[in-house]
Amino acid sequence: MDRKINVTIYNENFHETNDLEVAKIYPQGIHGAIKSIIENDAEFGTIRTCTLPDHAQVLTLETLEDTDVLVWWGHMKHREIGDELVEIIARRVLDGMGVIFLHSSHASKLFKKLLGTSGSLRWREAGEKGRLWNLMPNHPITEGIPETFTVPHDETYGELFGIPTPHDLIFLTWWQGGEVFRSGCTWIRGEGKLFYLQSGHETFPIYYQKEIRTIIYNAIKWACPVTRNIIRQRRPNVPALEKYELEDHDFYVFSEHKK
Amino acid sequence: MDRKINVTIYNENFHETNDLEVAKIYPQGIHGAIKSIIENDAEFGTIRTCTLPDHAQVLTLETLEDTDVLVWWGHMKHREIGDELVEIIARRVLDGMGVIFLHSSHASKLFKKLLGTSGSLRWREAGEKGRLWNLMPNHPITEGIPETFTVPHDETYGELFGIPTPHDLIFLTWWQGGEVFRSGCTWIRGEGKLFYLQSGHETFPIYYQKEIRTIIYNAIKWACPVTRNIIRQRRPNVPALEKYELEDHDFYVFSEHKK
Amino acid sequence: MDRKINVTIYNENFHETNDLEVAKIYPQGIHGAIKSIIENDAEFGTIRTCTLPDHAQVLTLETLEDTDVLVWWGHMKHREIGDELVEIIARRVLDGMGVIFLHSSHASKLFKKLLGTSGSLRWREAGEKGRLWNLMPNHPITEGIPETFTVPHDETYGELFGIPTPHDLIFLTWWQGGEVFRSGCTWIRGEGKLFYLQSGHETFPIYYQKEIRTIIYNAIKWACPVTRNIIRQRRPNVPALEKYELEDHDFYVFSEHKK
Amino acid sequence: MDRKINVTIYNENFHETNDLEVAKIYPQGIHGAIKSIIENDAEFGTIRTCTLPDHAQVLTLETLEDTDVLVWWGHMKHREIGDELVEIIARRVLDGMGVIFLHSSHASKLFKKLLGTSGSLRWREAGEKGRLWNLMPNHPITEGIPETFTVPHDETYGELFGIPTPHDLIFLTWWQGGEVFRSGCTWIRGEGKLFYLQSGHETFPIYYQKEIRTIIYNAIKWACPVTRNIIRQRRPNVPALEKYELEDHDFYVFSEHKK
Repeated sequence: MDRKINVTIYNENFHETNDLEVAKIYPQGIHGAIKSIIENDAEFGTIRTCTLPDHAQVLTLETLEDTDVLVWWGHMKHREIGDELVEIIARRVLDGMGVIFLHSSHASKLFKKLLGTSGSLRWREAGEKGRLWNLMPNHPITEGIPETFTVPHDETYGELFGIPTPHDLIFLTWWQGGEVFRSGCTWIRGEGKLFYLQSGHETFPIYYQKEIRTIIYNAIKWACPVTRNIIRQRRPNVPALEKYELEDHDFYVFSEHKK
Repeated sequence: MDRKINVTIYNENFHETNDLEVAKIYPQGIHGAIKSIIENDAEFGTIRTCTLPDHAQVLTLETLEDTDVLVWWGHMKHREIGDELVEIIARRVLDGMGVIFLHSSHASKLFKKLLGTSGSLRWREAGEKGRLWNLMPNHPITEGIPETFTVPHDETYGELFGIPTPHDLIFLTWWQGGEVFRSGCTWIRGEGKLFYLQSGHETFPIYYQKEIRTIIYNAIKWACPVTRNIIRQRRPNVPALEKYELEDHDFYVFSEHKK
Repeated sequence: MDRKINVTIYNENFHETNDLEVAKIYPQGIHGAIKSIIENDAEFGTIRTCTLPDHAQVLTLETLEDTDVLVWWGHMKHREIGDELVEIIARRVLDGMGVIFLHSSHASKLFKKLLGTSGSLRWREAGEKGRLWNLMPNHPITEGIPETFTVPHDETYGELFGIPTPHDLIFLTWWQGGEVFRSGCTWIRGEGKLFYLQSGHETFPIYYQKEIRTIIYNAIKWACPVTRNIIRQRRPNVPALEKYELEDHDFYVFSEHKK
Repeated sequence: MDRKINVTIYNENFHETNDLEVAKIYPQGIHGAIKSIIENDAEFGTIRTCTLPDHAQVLTLETLEDTDVLVWWGHMKHREIGDELVEIIARRVLDGMGVIFLHSSHASKLFKKLLGTSGSLRWREAGEKGRLWNLMPNHPITEGIPETFTVPHDETYGELFGIPTPHDLIFLTWWQGGEVFRSGCTWIRGEGKLFYLQSGHETFPIYYQKEIRTIIYNAIKWACPVTRNIIRQRRPNVPALEKYELEDHDFYVFSEHKK
């Protein structure tokens, strides 16, 4: 690709600023840990971050139209993201912007709006080990990822996960406690590519783990649209006044039928 | 199935009451024409109909929980269906209620909410002929439908149709004017089964056409859930306090980690 | 459905006749255990069974054309099924006959031919417990099946399973040993519906377990085609000499172009 | 990607050497026209071509293991490709090699083997115009392709096309004669990515058309695996003697059960 990939990272940043344990693990916030995956890399251009307090100033239409891929981490404060903003972001996704949803973002307004389902799941904060299985070793998102690896401690997310059938089912997780989970999934909505990764409870240093960083790095590159704002450039949603193949047709004339 | 299928039909009924041409075609309203497909049939139980003026009184939670399949026809007045009601209906679909979306319902709030996309498309009111091709001759929805048949006059709907990849792509339509369209599609959302059928512009007597009636009849039967309110009975969405397979495990103890 | 469902069951029957342990578990053979699921049931018509020694006499074209659903259990002797017979059976599936593949049939010629992949997987004979998770509680195949249940002892089958993306991913299995597996999958091939169920190692009495029997019962009903030999009746694969929409066209004339 | 893409092109080359009209259109053969799309391009490495007479010498295991993407054009002589060679090629695809199937290759042994279906379709040699509609404007294969474009004259291919549901349905074609066709489709088989493009009857200069060349160029790049021979390097298909998560388990012991 000729242009550099612009990325905007939203992280609620509530746990980091309200729980000392979490603050120790993520002193720069989860958004800082995510940013460090892609910064100083020649493939990436403008990297913006924002958190709950400043998200409305950063996530403007102007920023979004300059963004190729949006990364989203939210948990306790999904309701504090305004419906109108969610509407604007969702439209940008349909126009081609990629989105990476991390962990508890399965319950965010944006996730539920784009998928049309509940995002609900079983969960248990038991710090169990999760073993991820790589179902698509030739997918761009799994480049460099082995057949299987473990996240030593994470929040358990189990089926039945309230999602539509993924376009690509990339990871399945086995949990110590007996659950399984579709932990890495893609969907396409309009022209936008979506990726959900289950890993990343705030109480564990998961976003420093090598495999998880590789997956997120790959996923951002994969979700980048061929052209920024792809649909706005290509498909004005107007009536098809042009009649593609009617010139030589002796076709039914609507106005006559009305008489 | 042991129980009878309860069906609720919503039709905007705006054209029928505001356009004499349409009123002549559908003197009982489009809902009346749809109802006549399934009434006096031993497989069906309670059949309710409603229109824009009375929809809020009929589409109560009580009615919806007693409904197996909802049929939806709307066009000009999508915005007059309240957001809260759409939310309630969508939740019922996720819990297992089937929905049949007809024609211009591709732009209804409910369609867009459940699919997460724009539902946008090319359109042209030219009364062209559409030729439908049956891609799945062994699908329950196409029982009795030939490989191909025509709708003599309909509104043209063309790609690019703003939908997620269908679960089953059942019909493709060829149009005189050069467009093609994915005109019969299914999706699954939560436990609910969705079917969209393009055919049915209000200015043509399409809902009296034999093939169209057969498709709608089959689709309603197909969309009926195994059990009414299937998820409410089976999946209380609660934390998984039960630990399925942890009894014999010497697993990580979360409380100790917190210290 | 008006007609009764005709079922043909193939079981290799090698273990039952060569291993005393297995013979004790399945004195009537695995085919006998499968047959007992559907016999004396008003929905079913002719039920045929066959084993490796007599399969070629039973699985004639005549039998296959009188069969709605074929059930297949094989393990050690896949190579002893002739290529030509596999070809004939596969064609019947494309014409609408359903197939239920059980356990080690993932490596049968028929499975690999219809799916186009290796069917390969990880496996371990450790008699581990498998916990199945029901991902589609509103699917006809899961009627009566709870959200999760265990098979106390089975052969472990783990990912990466060499299959194309299932049409419906119905069950995921969690294994004691750390694997996960897509253990209940459907596909569509031509007009035929396929279902694969992982459960059923010959050394355990799995085909007597209530949930497994319910799944197989439901799956056979689900896989039954709308009409027997559906494609042979509907789609003679011939050149389209009929020109559907060309009558009024001033279209390109091939013969003139040739000059 | 760090390495250059190695491409091998097979073209039957029967029409070009037996029909003067075709020879005039493709003096270097269809393989020559395809080769000219990617030669002298820095992203591509070794480009090999072969035809029916020399295909067995060129398509050796050594060549295939050095190939990232195979392009296939065949029509009259599908049967002259040996079953054993088809088996070897198919295994390479499962291991990650991409394949581009062009036009009448829908009836090739390799296509049918990898998809598991008949590949059958309606067809008519009438030199009709086909109008392709781009359903996925943000797919790597459609970069640079407009929403719709026409192939002025081609052989008509119509539904029902005997294929499994595509992974990505990229193009739909509208035909003058009333047919529609899923004319651009992807599938995944094992780790290999497949793309089928309908366009390209030998009697028309279709492989010189700009849009068609762009599609083929993009598709070859898209089908290239992340790593050559990806599975051979990553997944030895052996029993899982390693017991991933069994160390701390008091699990069922198979040998004791046997007593």
